[in-house]
Order: sequence, then structure tokens, then C-alpha cells
Amino acid sequence: MTVDRILPSDEAHELLDLVTELADRELAPRAADFESRAEFPREVLRTLGRSGLLGLPYPQEYGGAEQPYEVYLQALEILASRWLAVAEAVSVHTLSCYPTAAYGTEQQRKLLPEMIGGELLGAYCLSEPQGGSDAASLTTRAVRDGEHYAVTGTKAWITHATSADFYNVFCRTGGPGAGGVSCLLAPAGTAGIEPQLPERTMGLRSSPVAQIVFDSARVPADRLIGEEGAGFRIAMAALDSGRLGIAACAVGLAQGALDYALAYAREREQFGRRIIDFQGLGFLLADMATQVAAARALTLAAARLRDAGRPYRVEAAKAKLFATDMAMRVTTDAVQVLGGAGYVADHPVERFFREAKVLQIVEGTNQIQRMVIARSFTH
Amino acid sequence: MTVDRILPSDEAHELLDLVTELADRELAPRAADFESRAEFPREVLRTLGRSGLLGLPYPQEYGGAEQPYEVYLQALEILASRWLAVAEAVSVHTLSCYPTAAYGTEQQRKLLPEMIGGELLGAYCLSEPQGGSDAASLTTRAVRDGEHYAVTGTKAWITHATSADFYNVFCRTGGPGAGGVSCLLAPAGTAGIEPQLPERTMGLRSSPVAQIVFDSARVPADRLIGEEGAGFRIAMAALDSGRLGIAACAVGLAQGALDYALAYAREREQFGRRIIDFQGLGFLLADMATQVAAARALTLAAARLRDAGRPYRVEAAKAKLFATDMAMRVTTDAVQVLGGAGYVADHPVERFFREAKVLQIVEGTNQIQRMVIARSFTH
Amino acid sequence: MTVDRILPSDEAHELLDLVTELADRELAPRAADFESRAEFPREVLRTLGRSGLLGLPYPQEYGGAEQPYEVYLQALEILASRWLAVAEAVSVHTLSCYPTAAYGTEQQRKLLPEMIGGELLGAYCLSEPQGGSDAASLTTRAVRDGEHYAVTGTKAWITHATSADFYNVFCRTGGPGAGGVSCLLAPAGTAGIEPQLPERTMGLRSSPVAQIVFDSARVPADRLIGEEGAGFRIAMAALDSGRLGIAACAVGLAQGALDYALAYAREREQFGRRIIDFQGLGFLLADMATQVAAARALTLAAARLRDAGRPYRVEAAKAKLFATDMAMRVTTDAVQVLGGAGYVADHPVERFFREAKVLQIVEGTNQIQRMVIARSFTH
Amino acid sequence: MTVDRILPSDEAHELLDLVTELADRELAPRAADFESRAEFPREVLRTLGRSGLLGLPYPQEYGGAEQPYEVYLQALEILASRWLAVAEAVSVHTLSCYPTAAYGTEQQRKLLPEMIGGELLGAYCLSEPQGGSDAASLTTRAVRDGEHYAVTGTKAWITHATSADFYNVFCRTGGPGAGGVSCLLAPAGTAGIEPQLPERTMGLRSSPVAQIVFDSARVPADRLIGEEGAGFRIAMAALDSGRLGIAACAVGLAQGALDYALAYAREREQFGRRIIDFQGLGFLLADMATQVAAARALTLAAARLRDAGRPYRVEAAKAKLFATDMAMRVTTDAVQVLGGAGYVADHPVERFFREAKVLQIVEGTNQIQRMVIARSFTH
Repeated sequence: MTVDRILPSDEAHELLDLVTELADRELAPRAADFESRAEFPREVLRTLGRSGLLGLPYPQEYGGAEQPYEVYLQALEILASRWLAVAEAVSVHTLSCYPTAAYGTEQQRKLLPEMIGGELLGAYCLSEPQGGSDAASLTTRAVRDGEHYAVTGTKAWITHATSADFYNVFCRTGGPGAGGVSCLLAPAGTAGIEPQLPERTMGLRSSPVAQIVFDSARVPADRLIGEEGAGFRIAMAALDSGRLGIAACAVGLAQGALDYALAYAREREQFGRRIIDFQGLGFLLADMATQVAAARALTLAAARLRDAGRPYRVEAAKAKLFATDMAMRVTTDAVQVLGGAGYVADHPVERFFREAKVLQIVEGTNQIQRMVIARSFTH
Repeated sequence: MTVDRILPSDEAHELLDLVTELADRELAPRAADFESRAEFPREVLRTLGRSGLLGLPYPQEYGGAEQPYEVYLQALEILASRWLAVAEAVSVHTLSCYPTAAYGTEQQRKLLPEMIGGELLGAYCLSEPQGGSDAASLTTRAVRDGEHYAVTGTKAWITHATSADFYNVFCRTGGPGAGGVSCLLAPAGTAGIEPQLPERTMGLRSSPVAQIVFDSARVPADRLIGEEGAGFRIAMAALDSGRLGIAACAVGLAQGALDYALAYAREREQFGRRIIDFQGLGFLLADMATQVAAARALTLAAARLRDAGRPYRVEAAKAKLFATDMAMRVTTDAVQVLGGAGYVADHPVERFFREAKVLQIVEGTNQIQRMVIARSFTH
Repeated sequence: MTVDRILPSDEAHELLDLVTELADRELAPRAADFESRAEFPREVLRTLGRSGLLGLPYPQEYGGAEQPYEVYLQALEILASRWLAVAEAVSVHTLSCYPTAAYGTEQQRKLLPEMIGGELLGAYCLSEPQGGSDAASLTTRAVRDGEHYAVTGTKAWITHATSADFYNVFCRTGGPGAGGVSCLLAPAGTAGIEPQLPERTMGLRSSPVAQIVFDSARVPADRLIGEEGAGFRIAMAALDSGRLGIAACAVGLAQGALDYALAYAREREQFGRRIIDFQGLGFLLADMATQVAAARALTLAAARLRDAGRPYRVEAAKAKLFATDMAMRVTTDAVQVLGGAGYVADHPVERFFREAKVLQIVEGTNQIQRMVIARSFTH
Repeated sequence: MTVDRILPSDEAHELLDLVTELADRELAPRAADFESRAEFPREVLRTLGRSGLLGLPYPQEYGGAEQPYEVYLQALEILASRWLAVAEAVSVHTLSCYPTAAYGTEQQRKLLPEMIGGELLGAYCLSEPQGGSDAASLTTRAVRDGEHYAVTGTKAWITHATSADFYNVFCRTGGPGAGGVSCLLAPAGTAGIEPQLPERTMGLRSSPVAQIVFDSARVPADRLIGEEGAGFRIAMAALDSGRLGIAACAVGLAQGALDYALAYAREREQFGRRIIDFQGLGFLLADMATQVAAARALTLAAARLRDAGRPYRVEAAKAKLFATDMAMRVTTDAVQVLGGAGYVADHPVERFFREAKVLQIVEGTNQIQRMVIARSFTH
């Protein structure tokens, strides 16, 4: 189903055309294979970087495309409709450039062109085994020791844990609570940073996640982003953006599933008719299409608030909540439309269904999103 | 809850500020009273007309404000959050100007300034007792007789049946099916046009609906809008716009209900705490707010397609379907938040709940919307 | 739709046949009229009492039918499918006999035959204006004064407030919290018991609710049910039974709405076919029928636990939660099936829809039910 | 969570205790391993057979336990809460004994003791690649040739395709439509019966399904069950029973997922508290528990109709529809409660979520169930 998009510029139209072409040519044919081998497609990311797709929202002076989030998110959406792991990698990488771009010194920003160009892949190390949702209580500790910080602790559920070239490490340099957290930009290969074996996840296997153990890892002090104690604020600001990215991924995933379901329902015959001509199935597909459209509209509305410099935290939480719950429902129904044919690994909707589930969990579970929204009612 | 709106112009901001002020001053204080008496607030409509709010999307040359639908719908939304019957009246009246504005001759359009200015109130006569959803099968017949058409038949569920100054009457001038339908703009007071007693509806009582019996009513032939046989196409085009109007009404109604629920939940204490501080209720309110935001975004996205001259029929159907189903759920939950206090006629949410139900039915039931969407999958 | 019921005895079959006959003959023809006048049908209750339907679960020695709850609830269900207010009156009255039957002295139980026979109608005074859900914090105070208690305070949302012959008054005789609450069986007509004007409720109008002001009302001390301090425990035990009653009412209401929707869908034609033959509507009706059946099964399963003397509080909460949420959805959809015809006061589904809402609120809101269930996970 | 079950006999209690013990001892420890190797646990089935669990509803004279369906289904439920593939194997096997038990000649029934004892494992060959839902149009043909039928065609989605000792083959011996279908009980090993490679399914991998190609397979004519042309009726009757079995499997799967979610929520702490003490999560778990209880009650109510010899086709369809949709929702939410920990293969809920999806598809998709229910409204 072609989506009729109103975009802010001709450039944006061209950009999304390019993304669509790349998604069809580079992503779609490879997804099943990499998923089955649980291998991260580092080269695909490099290709995207060279095509300018890893720094869409960042300034041109650092090699970015300086596109509004409204456009960036639609690029993510298109990628996700072909291969969620790659879209999520782009989202995470874009997120991992954010602290440097938004809070870095001029010196630190010298890394940006390589980051944005895709030569340096980033990871975002916030979650810990005991504190998935409660980031302010993180326990990974960084102790200043001359020109370095010695970092010790364990991070969990880290995307790009084993592929990243740099890590945004949120760690405690001060006392308890949000005010004691700082952000370090640690280079991969630093002694004492030890990515663990990847988790055996239900889906999104070509974007492996793993724990990372920090064992007195020495990170240069000039790799501190912002000031000591600014880390939690940086993390939350990045998360707001990241949630928009996940919402866009969910929209794309659901749109992809819907497209497959429609194609199947137009072909498949039962009782002497195409199944799409049965009103029971037609109404189901109509509801799915409506849900996808609503999630897209909500996500882009939140993005336009961000683009306009307005507060958007709460709207980003709504978008993440709505879009990912929607994607879970729509992919569940997409498998249903295909019946047995959708339950086997030969068909992409089987993968989409497994992938949708993780989107309800990452970047703050949907329970956390509801907490963010509810808090806005009283603050 | 203040809604942060990104609008296309400063003028639009001023317009919505005016609408908000009028809604607070002229609508809110009168709604309960008119509802209880089931009286149509003709004077309030006149006030809105004089303030320029009855012709928002129409050209300035006819007295309209020439606003994009995106802006017009947000005006409707604000009106609906205070008094749905008035918002619906504005929507129906705007709809009833559409055939003349879009398909009328220069001569016919001379009526537009009075229509748009609110001196002449319009009604839209499409449904019939036996064919609510199946408009192409309508049986009201118009027979050409010299310089007149003699119109005979019965129309049902007509808003403004007893208050309108003119009627768009869709009637059969030719053979069976969609191609035999024409549109006449009949003046009220024409002999043989007989509005019946209003229906005793569950809600929206200050916008009475009634059957209209046409008994050889003689309508001048120069009141034919478009050509003979063009009526069904006109009706469907008007309906597409009308569905956007209902979607906006649903968003406003739900937002109004949410606002009351939030206000109550911030005040009411149980078990020694404000009930909004119980996470169970906080999550419910967060889900309600998310649903309202999604419906608003979807409705405005469809409006922007219309404003850009793109096809929007299917997106309008999605918006009408999603927004009205949402309004039913959100008003049901709003009453729940208030408990017994929301079940009594002293509180507006009781009215909102009863009103929400009709929105799932009018301008094409939500089953018809699903048919429109499903048809797009195969055409 | 005839429900195929497996009952524990032939007697139960005969009883339900009698109930069905009475419901058709005495209830159905009167409901709309009494509702429109907001008048309590005291005579109908008397008729039910004389037919033995006001004491179904109570021992034969007191005039009861000694039926298991499984049977009693199906009687309620049938009554509710014709006239919810009467079914709810039966449920409330049965509830109001419970403290005396279960905790009364032999002397106190001498009132039971008249209560069960329907000569004395009961009310249950637990809720207060400030503490709808938080019963343990009630503030109505009873002070022992010789052979009487002087009762002062205000009760709210009291069914039969103005019609009852006796009140179960839960009031504070001791310190704060659940342990300080006692239960008095106050005769109507006691000086200082002042029922207020009925609330103007959205539905269930023929079962008026009102506040009752107690102004030093002197209730004989021998009207204390159980011991001082036992009141909260009595109230909660009665509520468990009462919740089953509400669940059964919800099942009946939804079944009634479904039956009307089916009848209409079999008659009404659109697009040249009966609308029930459109799969979109057929699937909707199938889902409605499935939900009604699930709620009935869950309610009766909880009843059988009660009948077997097993703990059933949590299962009663599940039944009340599920059945009333179901009834709200099913009645909403029933109106939808009828379209405009269901939105007018001429059709019973319009009433059913308004009535369903209150069931989600009474005998503990559905939020309270979830608290009861959630508490069982940790206790 | 212990389920408080009211059972019809002490024997039934003992039986379910035995099932629970076997499930804990023989099933739970093996499930993950067999699933990961996609290996069918033939020995486990043999153990169940020797324990008398493969013929629960069949007469004692054939080695069955002669238990009512109400009890048999609760046994299935308990098995499914530990290892769905085994429960489904028991259900399919029980189903595959049904034609012989219900329609077989005395001679044919001589096979029953070995079937029921688990020495001979059965498969049920109804679906075909082109006619999953439309069984009356099946194209596998059996041509009488002396004392044999020569069977040619392809069956699809056959459970036990590669493990079965006998196949119920539904094939066309006559003209088109339901009346031309017959049922043959073909021994495995018959020349020309060629099971294909198993499908790579998303879940339920230890119960492999595969196509079976029949290439002029010669089945003795005395293996015809019932008469020629009786096959479709046999298949539908068996399906009614089979749907109850799937409903029970769904209840068990959901209960298992709920139990894991509860256990996790009681242990896991965030923000300094057990997460089960957050009302947002507590309400989610309460809703899950309510849904499971409703599905169980509905399934057992349908079973009791069957046990009482009443028509139960429509109620079985409702149970299958409700229970499997419920299981999909509850397992989705169970993963959500665990967050990341539920998304990895180390935890059973990850498996339960993947397994739930297939239950909405097998034994008639849930769309087919709705057709069955809707048909009852007009027949």
C-alpha cells in the first residue's frame, strides 16, 4: 500500500525515495539470512552511512542531513518495513550520537563526522541488570583517577554491544539518585570493557544485544560529555528522541506486515472467492490499516513538536506507547490473515510478529511510558 | 489540559483563540439547559455566523474565512468540547453549503453569503427510513414538471429538520442506482415539505433530528445543483468532508470528557490520597489521553491531504472510524473515573457519554467506514 | 436466543420457567413506563415476593427457596434481561437480608419471613459522599445511649432510599479503620432518618438512589447485627454476594441487548440483503454472543464455589469485573447494530446502554474489583 | 496460582493430581530441550498412554478412562501449562481415535485398545494446501479398486505426520461438496503415503507438522470408517470435540504464562519495591487472571453440554474463539511483565507467546469459529 505523505520539502521526497530504493535493494533481500544467523549486518550500516542516512537529523557541518525529525522518522519507518534490526540500529546509532552532538565540546564534536558517516558505530549503555526501568538508580560507578575515570559495573540489554566503536556510558560519579549520574563516551577496545555473549532473543536477532562488563575500564576524563552530574538529564533527553525512533520503527513494522497481509488476502482463495472479499477479513484489514495510520499520524505530530522546539516528552511517550502496542496487535493479526502460511519461518510476517514484541519493551517499557504521561497530569 | 497546536498561520491561532473564547462564553453556560429542553439554539448559531464561524473553509468572496480544513476542524473540535450539538450543527451547516459552493452555478452561489453568514441555516437530506446506509437506493422521487420538480418521499434522521431555511434534497430523477440521483436545494416553507415531530434521541437533544415528508413539494428547477444524475457523486463528496467534521467533533468531545475526568481525579480523595495518584487510575487516564491525541493527529493528517488537493476519502473514513470509536471508549472511561458522580445529570460527562454513541452512527455508520476502507484494498 | 442451561435440579428448571413467565408478563410491559416516570415499582416487587422470588438463596424455615446461588443468579439474569431496575432491586433486597440471615440472633431473624416475603423492603447503607470506595473510612457515627444508638452522618447512593422498610446501616461505633464499624438494622420511619431527593441518574431511574441523612436517629440497641466492630466484616461478606448479583444482572442485560440486536439484524435489509447476512455484522454479533457466554460461565463458576462453601471472594470480583465490562461493550454494540433506531427512546437497547454503565460502578467500581484480585496475588 | 476446581468425582480429583504430577515430572523438565531440537517426544506420549491419559473420554472396554469431557479438558489444560506440544499431541491423538470410536465397526474398534494405550499414535488428515478452511472442497481422491482404495492427493499442516502409526484420511470418493467425502483409517507404512519435511514453524516445534503426499496409496477397503459420503459429517463432529481440546490447551498455556508472570512480579524490584506492588502492573495481572478464569469457565460450560448430550457445536466454537484469543493476549502481556527477561529463550514465557499464536489458527481459524457462531443466528 503506497502511503501518501505530505512532506516539508522536495529534498525530503527525494530522500525518502532514496531510502525506499536502498531498503528494497540492500535490506529486503538480506534480512532473513542475517536473522537466521543472528549476525549483525555491519556492512549494510556502512552503506547507509555512506548514503548519508546515519545522521539525518544532525547539522550539515558534521556531515548530517539537517533534516527535521518529521522526515528522519519516516526514513526510519521505511527501513523498518523491510528489516527492523537495521532500522533499530539506525535509531540506536542516531541516539548514540545525540549526547555528543547536543552536549559535546567543540573538541568532542570532532568525532561526529566519523560517527555520522557510519565509520564509528555507537552504543548506548544505560540499562543495568537490576534497574531496567529505574535508570536513576544505576550502580555502574566511575571514579576519577587523574586524567581518567575508572569505570566498574555491568550494563545490560546493550544494542551493538559487540559491534560498537564507541559507548555512551551512563555511570555514577556522585551520590545516589539522578543527580549523581554522568555520561562518558568510551572508545571500544578500552581495556576492561568486556562485552558478553549475546542474549538469545526471540527476534531482532541480527541486532544482537548483550551485557557489557566494565572492570576498572579507564576512560579518558576528556571523554566526559557535559558536566559531572548532567548524565541523567542527557539520558532522558536522548530517550525522548529515541522513543520517537522506536515509534517510527513500530509504524514501519506494522505497515510492512499489513502490506504482506493485503497481498496474501488478494491472492488466496477459499470457498471460491478471494479471502479479501469476505467482509469479515476486509473489516479486520480495515481496522489494521486504520491503526497503522493513527500511529503514524501521532508519531509525526510529536516529531513536529520537537522540530518546532516545543516540549515533546509527553507526546513522544504517547507515540511510543500507541505505536508499539499497535504494532503488536497488527502483526498478530497479519499472521492470522495468512493462517498457517504466516506461522512458518518462510514468511516475513512470522518474523515481524516476533519483532513487534520487543518494541513494547525497549526505550522504556510501555508501563514506563504510561508513568511519563500520568506524571504530566499532576506536574 | 491545554493542547499544544502547531498551526499554519498566526491568523489560525487568533481564530482558535476566538473560538475558544466564544465556546467558553456562549456555549458552555447554555448547553445543559438547552439539552434538558431539547431546544435548538438558533440564536447561538446566528452569533457564530456573525463571528464568521459558519463558513470557515469557504472562499472570502462569499463571506467565508478561506481557512484550510486543518484549521476549520480544530475550531469544530473546540466547540464540541463544550457543546456537541452546536459543533455538529456547524458541521452539518458547513456540509449543507458544500453542494452550492462546490457545484453551484454563479447564480446559485448568490445565496452563499447569507448561508455562510448564518442567516440561512441548512439541512442535508440524504438518509431515508429504509436506506440509512445504502444511499444509492434512495426512493424519494423528483419529477420534472415544467419549471419545477415535484418531490415526493420521506427523508429520515435529518438534522435541523425543523430549523433549516434550506434543504439539500437528494432525490431520484432518473433510473435506479447511483446514476439516477440528483440534488435539489429546496427552500424551507415550500408547500409539501413537512418536517415531522423530532425523534426522542438518547442525546444531542438540542440538535433535534426528524423525518421530513415530501408530498409533491414543488421545487424550482433552477434549484438543481449540478446536473441531473450528479447527485450521488455530490452527496459522497460532501460526506467525505462531513466525516472529517464528525471526526473532529469526536476528538473535541473526548478531550472535554478527559479534561473533566482529570479535574475530578485531581480533587477527589479516597484511601487518604488523590485518586489521580493511584497508578491504576493514572494509567487509565494516560491511555485515554493517548487515544485522544492519536485521533486528533489522524483527523488532522486526513485534513491536510484534503487541503493539499490529494485524494482523502479513505483517510477521512479512517479518521471518522477511529475518532468516534475512541470517543465512545474515552467517555465511557471518563464516567468511570467519576464513579457515581459521573452517572448523574448534574455532570457534563454524563451527557458526553450519551452523545458519543451517536457519532459512531452518523455520516455513515462505522461499519460503512470499514466498507469504504476495505474497498480501497481491491480497487 | 434460547440459552441452554444445565441446572442442578428439576425444581430449578421449574423455577426459571416461572421467572421467565413473570418477567415476560409482569416486567417487560411496564419497564419503559416506570423508567420514564422514574417511579419505583413497589407492587412488582411485592408480586415477586409473593411468588417466592425475593428469598431464593435463604433457608425454607424463613420462607426462602433454599436454592443454590447458581440458580438464584440465573433467576436474576432473566429478570435483568427484561428490566434491570427490578433485577437490581431483587439483588439489593436479597443483599439487605443477608446480614440478618447470616449474623442475626434468633430474635432478629424473626423479621426474615416478612423481609423475604417482600412485605418489608430493605436497603443497604454503606457508601458515603466522601468515601465511595473506601468503606473502612466511613464516618457515620453511632453512639450508644442507653437502649439505643444515636446515629449521625450521611449515606450516599442508597438504592431504595425512599422505598425501604429497613436499612442496614454501617456506622462507626469504635475507633478508626475497619475494626470500628458496626451494623445496625434500622426501621424506616425512625425519627432522624431523612432520605433526600433522588439523584437524577442517567439510567436505572425506576430504581431511585438518594442520600440518607441520619440526624441523631435513635436505633434500638437490639438492632445491632453481630457484635460491635463486626460491621466491616459483615459488609464485605455481603458485598461478595452482592457482586455476584451484579454480575448476573450484567449478563442478563447484555443477553437482552443481544437478543434485540439479533432480532433487528434478521429483519432489517440494506443493499438488498438482511444485514445479519453481511459477515461484518455477523462477526460482530458472534463476538457479542461469545462475550455474553463467557461472562455467564464465569459468574456461575464463581457461584458454584460459593455454593460449595469454598472461598469465592476473588472469583466474585473477577465475575463482577468481567461481566459488567462486557455488558458495557455489548450494549454499546447492540445500539450500533440498530443504528439510528437504537439511539431513540422508543427502543429498549437505548435504555440498556445507559443502564450498563452503572453496573461498572456499583458494589465496588471495577477498579476496586481489580484491587481485590491483585491483592490475592500477594496475600 | 492454584486453581480451585469443582470436579464431578473423587476419581477426577485423583486423575488431575496424577496429571499434575506427571506434568511436573515428565513434561516440564524436557520441554525446552525438545523444542530446541524440534523433536517429537514419542516416549513421553507412550508414558502418558501407559498412565491411561491418551483415552480419557473413551469407554473402559477399549481401555479408556470413561471420563466426562469436563474432566478430560482439565487434564489437557494442566499438560498445556507445562508443555503445549504434548497437550496438543494428546488432543490430536484423542481426536484421531474419535472416528473409530464413534463410527467404527466392531471389527475396526479392535484397534482401539492399542490406539488408546498409546502404542499406535494417530494423525488427522483433513486440511489441504489450497483449502485450509474450506474442508468441504477437499480434492484428495480415493478410488475404489477391488478390495482397496487408491488415494491420491496432498494433505497439509498434519500433526504427527512423521510419527503417526495411523492416519484418518478425509478424501473424496464421490462428487463435489460435503456429500462426496469419506474417511479412511490408513496404516502408516502404506506404500504411497509420503510424509514430507516438517514445516519450520514459529513455535510448537516439538510437535512437527508436515504435508503428506498420497500417491496412489492403497488403503484396504475395510478401513473405511462409516459409509462412503459420511466423511464430512465425521470430520465436523470430530472438529467440534477437537475445538474444545484446543480451547483447553489455550487455557492451560495462558495459566502457565500468568503463573510465571506472577512469580517474576513478586520477585523483581524496581524503584525500591516489588513490581507487583505497583498498581499499574497489579491491575494488568488482575485483568490477565480474569481473562484466564473466564476462558476456563466458558470451555468447561461447553464441555458440560457435550457431556449432557446436548448440542454443543456453537458453544465449542465460542470457547475455541475466546480461549485462544485470550491466550494470545495473556501471553503477550506475560512477556511484557518480564520485560527483557521474557524476550529471551531462557524463559518459558518466550515460548508460550510463540505457541499461543498457532492456537488462533488450528482446528478452524478464529474467523471460521465466528462463521460457525454467526450461522447459528439464522439457521
